[in-house]
Amino acid sequence: MNRKLIAVMPEMTAKEEEAIRSAAEQYGIEASFYPTAEAAMPHVEDAEILFGFSPELASKAPNLKWYCTSSAGVDRFTDRSIYAAENVILTSSSGAYGTTIAEHAVMVILEVLRRQGEYTELVSSHIWKRGLPVRSIYRSRITLLGTGDIGKSCAERLKGFRPACMIGVNHSGNNPQNCFDRAVPVSQLEEVLPETDILILSLPKTDETYHLLKEQQLSLLPEGALVVNVGRGTVIDQKALEQELRKGRLYAALDVFEEEPLGPEASIWDCPNLLITPHCSGDLSLASTVEETVRLFLENLKCYAEGKPLKRIIDFDKGY
Amino acid sequence: MNRKLIAVMPEMTAKEEEAIRSAAEQYGIEASFYPTAEAAMPHVEDAEILFGFSPELASKAPNLKWYCTSSAGVDRFTDRSIYAAENVILTSSSGAYGTTIAEHAVMVILEVLRRQGEYTELVSSHIWKRGLPVRSIYRSRITLLGTGDIGKSCAERLKGFRPACMIGVNHSGNNPQNCFDRAVPVSQLEEVLPETDILILSLPKTDETYHLLKEQQLSLLPEGALVVNVGRGTVIDQKALEQELRKGRLYAALDVFEEEPLGPEASIWDCPNLLITPHCSGDLSLASTVEETVRLFLENLKCYAEGKPLKRIIDFDKGY
Repeated sequence: MNRKLIAVMPEMTAKEEEAIRSAAEQYGIEASFYPTAEAAMPHVEDAEILFGFSPELASKAPNLKWYCTSSAGVDRFTDRSIYAAENVILTSSSGAYGTTIAEHAVMVILEVLRRQGEYTELVSSHIWKRGLPVRSIYRSRITLLGTGDIGKSCAERLKGFRPACMIGVNHSGNNPQNCFDRAVPVSQLEEVLPETDILILSLPKTDETYHLLKEQQLSLLPEGALVVNVGRGTVIDQKALEQELRKGRLYAALDVFEEEPLGPEASIWDCPNLLITPHCSGDLSLASTVEETVRLFLENLKCYAEGKPLKRIIDFDKGY
Repeated sequence: MNRKLIAVMPEMTAKEEEAIRSAAEQYGIEASFYPTAEAAMPHVEDAEILFGFSPELASKAPNLKWYCTSSAGVDRFTDRSIYAAENVILTSSSGAYGTTIAEHAVMVILEVLRRQGEYTELVSSHIWKRGLPVRSIYRSRITLLGTGDIGKSCAERLKGFRPACMIGVNHSGNNPQNCFDRAVPVSQLEEVLPETDILILSLPKTDETYHLLKEQQLSLLPEGALVVNVGRGTVIDQKALEQELRKGRLYAALDVFEEEPLGPEASIWDCPNLLITPHCSGDLSLASTVEETVRLFLENLKCYAEGKPLKRIIDFDKGY
């Protein structure tokens, strides 16, 4: 048995590691697990399969055939020059993150609409004050830019809050599983922005999505609109958004930024009307996310071993 | 026209006041609006109908026939001795608060499970730190103690998050509109507590609900369970809960307390594992809540004027 699979995903339980180990063994593949990329590095030369989120391993693995990222976003893996091997198949764990990221999105939407940041400050000063003017998801017009697993998972959870409408915006204009009240192609984005109270972004980082929301697009949003970004920071012109927030015209909840991590001196930390989280919406600290990531990997490992087409294959040129 | 209706509800818009004024006029009733109980006081002596949340007016209104509270909870109105008149009909605005209180409940549940309090502190110190271990509503076992408008509205919103189950607990054990996976009578509460990850309380303050959750009941909840109270503070033995929170065994999100407002020196302000909000979950600062309160009042005003039975009548003895 000299076919090798190396996984770097310290969040896995012993049971999950064992599930991968025994499945791989069945296919004549030896699985090894390392807590960090550094620990794995000396062992990747003859690795055929990598599973994790360590782009630096790719350059040290000339025999690599398949890289499965434990993430949903693959922007750090789509530059062919990071790979020592040629014709590597890249797959993602898209589908594993909808639950946790949608929970994050609903939470931050409610926190901004219900002014929970201000209440938290008052409470931390032991001040009992009620009656801050709040808003509601109920009857809000929601636009979801990005209708993949994350956008659909958001819509599934927001539906029970009875928004006025939920419009999906994507490449094709198709409405996947009718999750949305309707869908429009991204070419019509500017037509839906003026009718949007809550805008949820879950787009990947690609050339096509770069600064999709610039000053012009942001200016089309109505006064008081809330922009939530749980995709990639590069989709928004952050400077332009910061201006709108400082003017008090828009609100935002950002989990992702153009440059991460935010340095301690970044001006955006203290921007008004903004709820910042440190790209934690899709953390693997949630057990069910890890479990689903492993389940999707095992599903693909079976396809791989049986010579069948893999799922969630990334097109290097498109970047998703 | 000497039949008089007095409304004290400053949150109403001019349009909502006008809707009440013109409806009342149709029935030969003159409606007056005051911003405070104090301003209304000199005018209530010949009032036949009161609408608002000012129990102190009841004692100055010997001709009162109907008091409609703008609140859902009526505990401050069920002591007959507050009324100068006899045989007053008391109705509530139950049904108007489900939307806003359920949004609050979902928000605080997610904030506690996703450790948003800690993230907020880190972010306020400009510290970028990810990976705090979080939990999810997904697969959680939810018990809703109280299955009225608020409990049902919570269930409607939580369903999309795919909890493992939602069990309603109420007086009868009936499952209203099949909103819950199943319902049990409150006599079986102790059987469901050990199987509860998230417990949502939306009960009124009555003799029957007083300290329904004492040390014994709280001890039945599994380690790490989250108690959310958006009903009335008297339902929980607050001292007993505070002990469990300080031990680190349970988590809680409390919007209501045994004594309100919390004084600046109250020990509970700094209790660990606890998210405090200042009884703001059902604030009338949300426009759609005011709108619904007015709609329900107008519905009942029609019944009243036409001599038909009113809806949402409170049984003074039961207290709900």
